[in-house]
Amino acid sequence: MLPPYLSHRNLRFVLLEMLEMQQLTRFERYTDYDKDTIEPLLDAALQIADQHLFPFYMEMDRKKAVCVNGVVTTHPQLKVIIQSIAEGGWIGAHADPEFGGMNMPLTLLYSGLLTFYAANVNACYPFLTQGAANLILSFGSDALKEQFVHKMHSGEWQGTMALTEPQAGSSLSDVIATAEPTETAGTYLIKGQKIFISGGDHDAAENIVHLLLARIKGAPAGTKGISLFVVPKYRSENNQFVSNDVTTAGIYGKMGQKGYVAAHLMYGEKEDCQGYLLGEPNRGLNYMFQMMNEARIGTGLVAAGAASAAYYASLKYAQERPQGRLPSSKDATKPQIPIIEHADVRRMLLFQKSVVEGSIALLMQCSYYADLERMATGIEKHHAFLLLELLTPIAKSFPSEYGVLSVSQAMQVLGGAGYCDDFPVEQIYRDIRVNAIYEGTTGIHGLDLLGRKVFIEKGKAVQLFGNEMINEISASEQASKPVQKAGRQLGAVAQKLQEVTQQLMKMGQEHGAEALLADATLYLDYFSLVAVAWIWLKQAVVADKALQKAVGDDRVFYESKIHTMRYFYEYELPKTKALHHRLSSTDKLTLTTPKEYFI
Amino acid sequence: MLPPYLSHRNLRFVLLEMLEMQQLTRFERYTDYDKDTIEPLLDAALQIADQHLFPFYMEMDRKKAVCVNGVVTTHPQLKVIIQSIAEGGWIGAHADPEFGGMNMPLTLLYSGLLTFYAANVNACYPFLTQGAANLILSFGSDALKEQFVHKMHSGEWQGTMALTEPQAGSSLSDVIATAEPTETAGTYLIKGQKIFISGGDHDAAENIVHLLLARIKGAPAGTKGISLFVVPKYRSENNQFVSNDVTTAGIYGKMGQKGYVAAHLMYGEKEDCQGYLLGEPNRGLNYMFQMMNEARIGTGLVAAGAASAAYYASLKYAQERPQGRLPSSKDATKPQIPIIEHADVRRMLLFQKSVVEGSIALLMQCSYYADLERMATGIEKHHAFLLLELLTPIAKSFPSEYGVLSVSQAMQVLGGAGYCDDFPVEQIYRDIRVNAIYEGTTGIHGLDLLGRKVFIEKGKAVQLFGNEMINEISASEQASKPVQKAGRQLGAVAQKLQEVTQQLMKMGQEHGAEALLADATLYLDYFSLVAVAWIWLKQAVVADKALQKAVGDDRVFYESKIHTMRYFYEYELPKTKALHHRLSSTDKLTLTTPKEYFI
Repeated sequence: MLPPYLSHRNLRFVLLEMLEMQQLTRFERYTDYDKDTIEPLLDAALQIADQHLFPFYMEMDRKKAVCVNGVVTTHPQLKVIIQSIAEGGWIGAHADPEFGGMNMPLTLLYSGLLTFYAANVNACYPFLTQGAANLILSFGSDALKEQFVHKMHSGEWQGTMALTEPQAGSSLSDVIATAEPTETAGTYLIKGQKIFISGGDHDAAENIVHLLLARIKGAPAGTKGISLFVVPKYRSENNQFVSNDVTTAGIYGKMGQKGYVAAHLMYGEKEDCQGYLLGEPNRGLNYMFQMMNEARIGTGLVAAGAASAAYYASLKYAQERPQGRLPSSKDATKPQIPIIEHADVRRMLLFQKSVVEGSIALLMQCSYYADLERMATGIEKHHAFLLLELLTPIAKSFPSEYGVLSVSQAMQVLGGAGYCDDFPVEQIYRDIRVNAIYEGTTGIHGLDLLGRKVFIEKGKAVQLFGNEMINEISASEQASKPVQKAGRQLGAVAQKLQEVTQQLMKMGQEHGAEALLADATLYLDYFSLVAVAWIWLKQAVVADKALQKAVGDDRVFYESKIHTMRYFYEYELPKTKALHHRLSSTDKLTLTTPKEYFI
Repeated sequence: MLPPYLSHRNLRFVLLEMLEMQQLTRFERYTDYDKDTIEPLLDAALQIADQHLFPFYMEMDRKKAVCVNGVVTTHPQLKVIIQSIAEGGWIGAHADPEFGGMNMPLTLLYSGLLTFYAANVNACYPFLTQGAANLILSFGSDALKEQFVHKMHSGEWQGTMALTEPQAGSSLSDVIATAEPTETAGTYLIKGQKIFISGGDHDAAENIVHLLLARIKGAPAGTKGISLFVVPKYRSENNQFVSNDVTTAGIYGKMGQKGYVAAHLMYGEKEDCQGYLLGEPNRGLNYMFQMMNEARIGTGLVAAGAASAAYYASLKYAQERPQGRLPSSKDATKPQIPIIEHADVRRMLLFQKSVVEGSIALLMQCSYYADLERMATGIEKHHAFLLLELLTPIAKSFPSEYGVLSVSQAMQVLGGAGYCDDFPVEQIYRDIRVNAIYEGTTGIHGLDLLGRKVFIEKGKAVQLFGNEMINEISASEQASKPVQKAGRQLGAVAQKLQEVTQQLMKMGQEHGAEALLADATLYLDYFSLVAVAWIWLKQAVVADKALQKAVGDDRVFYESKIHTMRYFYEYELPKTKALHHRLSSTDKLTLTTPKEYFI
């Protein structure tokens, strides 16, 4: 039987066969996380998702969150969702037991997240809380930890990231919210407004805890004058909770993710909004960036989950819907065939499968690097850090950008039915689009990759990634013919990518940063296709080996893996040819377009 | 100042400079349509759109059409829209004066349609009526014409195309609605249901006239047993209008185009639904196909209009929104710059402009062929017919498929704001998606192009199109350097397309229709990029020539044309490289995917 939104067979393959994450038990903190612990936890996540999340996906869109007179009301199921995830231990899972955690490896934690997101994107709320609590755990005083983290990990309090302001979207250095010291050390009066704050206000939590960027009066301009504050909606005063002067101006009319509130918030309109400084003054953006990789992997997981749910909805439809006949058999007296028999429908399904499973494998690979960065030491830790830095813009933007195309193909499989709300696909189509905007737009990630990541430690990260590819290509040489062929293809395209990278660097030296970065978004696309081809080769090598002993359903599973890899190499990877052509061109026409040409 | 949804300066360029449509005056029917007639009519269309359509675009989505107990209620403005378009003469414009028409060339008529669609997609209703009335004019008896066409051209009655049934979507040969002869010759009792019927029922018209496909009892199976009927909601009996037993089961919850009703209709539930046979029995699908090119050009116009409106919304935002600084100037004390200064934003704007203006030029070129097919004689008529046949799948699917990507880039320019309903872009994003499904999905048009159109008269249509490209390439040799360069590029890529076409035909001969058509959708994409490159070269050649005498705004306009052409050749046309690679491959893996691999 088809899974309705996510294949846990595939997830187990990625975790236990491709990554062999059970080997993380070599780290003391993770010593309990062998296969016998991992599998029941995956089952438990799936059970929560099946029972509390998936059945309410469409309903939470129809009965969307509303804001009346500054009071935000959400679907009553939201409270159940948050509580069930909290009770399963998933909000603070990775943390120390002292704060309700269970020392869970990030790779497993993110597998749970993926399961929840695929079932129902409104499951994002508790993981915002997780990210916010993480900041307090990483940089807060013991008092702040004690005051906030328990209630957040229990799901009673909601956490947010309050960064964006009307004049400071992609350009966070332009934040102008202010913080004025009070007589109490560490406590500041906050004033300003924040927009597009996800989870910024709702009735399924007793309190909302904003992790907020602001400038302490007199701080320097730009990124070096921004500090990070904990700003609750209700503050504790004499053992009572009183209003902390945070008001909701409204919520946004989003095209999708309608159960997931984004609020416009006003802080300190009555000059009575207190914020508690986190860590040192003026280091707020640094702190935030240390958690940003997490949020970016999270965004990739949301997109991959959405694309997965759409894939399975369209696959079910394709298996059940009879329509038309094969080109060679047009006899209208014969019954119609299920549309999965049509080559074009299969192409659209294979495209989705290659995007979904490629994204999931890449995201889990990054999660695994995050675990190594967290737990390993010395060179192993440092290499994991570099690879994670390099691949994060890709793990965020590939699932987001190709996910949009993937869900669009799901809709196309359903035809008119896919455009209408009897099926979930139209909602997924609306929901997934925002992932290419959240947590840095795709353009920002292109700049991050080409303007920063490829230069880290004189290109060390790129070199390490090259080694990873070489390892996989070597492994493929022992495999079956189609896998060998893919290995050779990856070698050739990686060589091409390296050529382009060097050309671009040379151009940057000669003509400056604008010339280097003009087509950074296309470079990100190019690099992403190569990285996903690499992770597909890695999956295929593992599947190829496993095939030697596999029987029954397992056999079909591994064969399907290799077949889907072949699809990606035949249909998607060749797109690098077009990108190579463009990125090699010396015609920088976007830089030389006079403004008045836009008419 | 920017136009809010469509550039009429550009439309005039296409009509009067590129096509020189004023030369259609050589045909007697069009003798009045010189420049002095064309321009005021374009102005008149724009005035209707500005006044009655555009201001209500967002409101008609918010207050969407609803169906309660079988009664469909639409936004009150719909009646005003239909009436204003009818009073302007646009519903029957192309028809004879006898039926309220003004002998208008199709090229001009479709320019009016484009203007209306760009302003507000809910303007589709009257043009469904136009298509339905056209069928009656082309194939109906004098009595049917007299009875229906006047009321339809006046906008009092709505027309529809009632084709799709639950089991017959893309596969129209599987229609099963029945028609049983009555004692009155030409009158039949209709029974069956039709789904997704646009304009199928609403309260802004006094009557709804369905052009409906059904089988006369005893007719042969398949396409050769389908007849076409006129089936009104209310029929005339003894000079009174009585119910004709057409009931509305419901309307669809569409993701977009929410002001544009799609209904599920039941005919003859009380055995009292009369239909009037149009033309001869069993020729219904032939008749319908004769009008299909029209509907397909219409769908392309809707998509191009939507993409145009999104382009101008995002361009306005890009000019007004300050955010960030150039890579080479990160001083946070300096003011932020408008985002149009960023290379990546310019790329997203140029992409949109190239799609919008490329689509419009191609659609108008097809409309011009339609005029020649209608009015010319002999070989000129026949060549126009062949070129129109060949290019129609492209004129339908390129604006629809690339339009979706284009509007997505508009949303990306706006970032978070684009995802929310304070701006029209999120609505356009939802609205435009259906055009790749309506009137034959993109997959169907791929099959039409590669399975039928390239084979017409032993490849005559393709050969004629090759001649058109050669003409343009020759003309480019006299032009400025960038235009010359584009001419050479087009020559090279056209050669490549020809190679692939021949390879595919050979493969089809050797391995059958399934092998030929497996990647027909990709072939359509390839051919589309070449066709749009051709129409861009054509525009650039004209602009290049005009530049010799141009001053002021005109100069900027022509320079911008050539610049946008360069964008298309630099960034979009290279995508054919990837398609060429895939289409040349002998690995037909979509054909050889076992069903059980889809897991």
